[in-house]
Amino acid sequence: MTASADPAGRTCGTLAGVNEAERQALELAVELAARGAGTVLPNPVVGCVLLSPSGQIVGRGWHQRAGGPHAEVVALADAGDAARGATAVVTLEPCNHTGRTGPCSQALIAAGVAKVIVAVRDPWPAAAGGVDVLRAAGVEVHEVGDTDSPAEDVNRVWLTATRKRRAFVTFKAGMTIDARVAAADGTSRWITSPESRADVHRLRGEVDTMMVGVGTVLADDPLLTVRDADGELVGRQPLRVVIDSPGRTPSDARVRNDDAETLIATAAEFGHGRRVDVGAVLSELYRRGRRHVLLEGGPRLATSMLDAGLVDEVVVYIAPLLLGAGRSLLDGSAVDTLTAAHRAELVAVDRFGPDVRLRYTVRG
Amino acid sequence: MTASADPAGRTCGTLAGVNEAERQALELAVELAARGAGTVLPNPVVGCVLLSPSGQIVGRGWHQRAGGPHAEVVALADAGDAARGATAVVTLEPCNHTGRTGPCSQALIAAGVAKVIVAVRDPWPAAAGGVDVLRAAGVEVHEVGDTDSPAEDVNRVWLTATRKRRAFVTFKAGMTIDARVAAADGTSRWITSPESRADVHRLRGEVDTMMVGVGTVLADDPLLTVRDADGELVGRQPLRVVIDSPGRTPSDARVRNDDAETLIATAAEFGHGRRVDVGAVLSELYRRGRRHVLLEGGPRLATSMLDAGLVDEVVVYIAPLLLGAGRSLLDGSAVDTLTAAHRAELVAVDRFGPDVRLRYTVRG
Ligand SMILES: NC(=O)c1ccc[n+]([C@@H]2O[C@H](COP(=O)([O-])OP(=O)(O)OC[C@H]3O[C@@H](n4cnc5c(N)ncnc54)[C@H](OP(=O)(O)O)[C@@H]3O)[C@@H](O)[C@H]2O)c1
Ligand SMILES: NC(=O)c1ccc[n+]([C@@H]2O[C@H](COP(=O)([O-])OP(=O)(O)OC[C@H]3O[C@@H](n4cnc5c(N)ncnc54)[C@H](OP(=O)(O)O)[C@@H]3O)[C@@H](O)[C@H]2O)c1
Ligand SMILES: [Zn+2]
Ligand SMILES: [Zn+2]
Repeated sequence: MTASADPAGRTCGTLAGVNEAERQALELAVELAARGAGTVLPNPVVGCVLLSPSGQIVGRGWHQRAGGPHAEVVALADAGDAARGATAVVTLEPCNHTGRTGPCSQALIAAGVAKVIVAVRDPWPAAAGGVDVLRAAGVEVHEVGDTDSPAEDVNRVWLTATRKRRAFVTFKAGMTIDARVAAADGTSRWITSPESRADVHRLRGEVDTMMVGVGTVLADDPLLTVRDADGELVGRQPLRVVIDSPGRTPSDARVRNDDAETLIATAAEFGHGRRVDVGAVLSELYRRGRRHVLLEGGPRLATSMLDAGLVDEVVVYIAPLLLGAGRSLLDGSAVDTLTAAHRAELVAVDRFGPDVRLRYTVRG
Repeated sequence: MTASADPAGRTCGTLAGVNEAERQALELAVELAARGAGTVLPNPVVGCVLLSPSGQIVGRGWHQRAGGPHAEVVALADAGDAARGATAVVTLEPCNHTGRTGPCSQALIAAGVAKVIVAVRDPWPAAAGGVDVLRAAGVEVHEVGDTDSPAEDVNRVWLTATRKRRAFVTFKAGMTIDARVAAADGTSRWITSPESRADVHRLRGEVDTMMVGVGTVLADDPLLTVRDADGELVGRQPLRVVIDSPGRTPSDARVRNDDAETLIATAAEFGHGRRVDVGAVLSELYRRGRRHVLLEGGPRLATSMLDAGLVDEVVVYIAPLLLGAGRSLLDGSAVDTLTAAHRAELVAVDRFGPDVRLRYTVRG
């Protein structure tokens, strides 16, 4: 990939102070970062592209899995001697702590990198400071600092979790056009198409935690595991969490089987009066290294979490059905007037067989 | 537009017996037909393209407004002498009755057209028979006969109304992600964006009738007129119908003003016991020359019409809001289990500002 810069060597787009080759490198770095989704948790996804002084790509790398080398280290190895004098374009501030792999800021300095373009600052105090260390060593650092960027979005789970010190929550549901998640007699299998359900298993494979209310366990007895089309378990299984104040989860509930770990969160342990304090559960999950919860209902738990500001993202699969009765996606909210509605932002529209999937970010 | 046919002069797509030039002409004819949407009611939309023996387009026409010349007549005039020996590609069977403009089948014969390709048969007995007349006069006729074609879709309103002898019903609503059409305190203005509301006025401009339940009149006092961004009335106004069994529409309701005609349908006039028989209202509307009803709620009326098989199409504008309480899009249905859900088919996904619009055909 070569790039043509404008006469001043700068573009006048949203990325002030970044030339066209650097802008394209950042786009690529975000793509590389995304490849780590699911496997890097509890770490952030990170992508790194090294550019020669003339704007040629001389190295690329991304963080592939927790415990593996960081994106910068991979890109430096890819570039070899060409790293000297190069510009490193990174989706996240290079780390400054000596974890399992040593600080990346030191590695960049040692390799003779001349300039570092940082898309997003690291909000984690123990890792932050990479920018300062680089500057102190004479490396030019340019911070993009755009809070609405692809680099921010690709890392939204980890960034939000780190800033809020609790696991990020994606609320997912399969529903009819009239937002029913179960018919009047309780039947809910299957509202959505096989294509949508396959995508749900892909989504489950990207999170480290599954969560449901005890009402859903009692109604549907779900497994909450990641399975392929033949029903076989695939890959690392997320932790299963049941929010169950009174401790009503049956001893033979399938969610208690050996396919994955399970946490039954009761009021006795996470109490807030008679109720489970779900915010406390999410903070405890964070302390235990969990970053991404896929909340699969039901309506009562999801509504109480939404009202408590504990839902970050909503993904709905809309099947081409109309029920006109039964359980609604959300129910029993304290919101009583239109101006108090929870606001979201549509991020993506996709089709899965006969269904539509809408993905929203909830405005915090 | 020129077209290249395969060696055999035939394509192997879904349109058996139609060559590439004819297939492209049919596509164009459907586009031309669509231009009449809204202004031709109570007539069908029709498009016609004339091809020379070598496959060149020599004439085009569409039915522009009720009372105006038919598509075939316009295309013949456009072609002049070139109509002799040509192939006429029409979206609907040429008419055979002497209405305001004389039968098109006779006009095609008189102009010396050699072949007619008919996409959809006319289901209206008084007009049908054009194909037989053409064949009797020695004109070659090819019927495409595909019930899932664009020519069928572009005319779905008129074809369905004619086949069912009642007005076609499009149920439209603006709702939150959780399918709420009003908050718990009754507020519903505005759930959707100005962009969506502008599209609703475009939709109102394409129908000949608006319908609501008296509950919506009492809650929202809507005008049900077609207005521009400044609130000014534009174009021909649809008939406004209120389904109001006990006759509770206030004498000063805005729906009764002079901006458009209004029909308050009560049980006394359209009775079925204490209730209005909405099927009878739709049949009566058909007799009065009305073909397309835009049903704007509320949930109770829409649900009873859906359960009665009286909803043909659903259009929902989904705003990026979550209420978790309030009125659902549909409510009180007799459907009590998932397998009995009403089935629909997703036809289009579009974005209007921050909202998504989904259009569905309800399976009869
Ligand atoms: N289509 C789908 O995607 C989908 C997914 C999941 C579920 N569903 C359907 O949803 C229905 C079950 O949902 P549901 O609403 O009845 O049950 P739920 O939300 O799964 O669980 C609610 C239960 O959790 C308990 N709970 C404990 N702490 C809570 C807290 N902080 N906030 C809220 N609840 C808390 C509640 O206890 P208390 O008794 O103390 O209030 C209540 O009994 C079933 O019909 C199922 O089929 C559909
Ligand atoms: N967001 C949107 O797009 C939108 C659009 C429209 C309305 N809304 C909201 O919907 C609410 C009003 O809806 P609603 O459900 O209360 O009222 P509705 O559906 O507008 O009207 C129901 C009324 O119609 C009467 N009716 C007469 N014949 C009927 C029949 N055959 N089937 C059904 N009903 C018949 C019913 O009479 P009986 O009393 O005899 O049952 C009932 O009183 C308001 O909150 C409004 O804001 C929202
Ligand atoms: Zn690092
Ligand atoms: Zn005609």
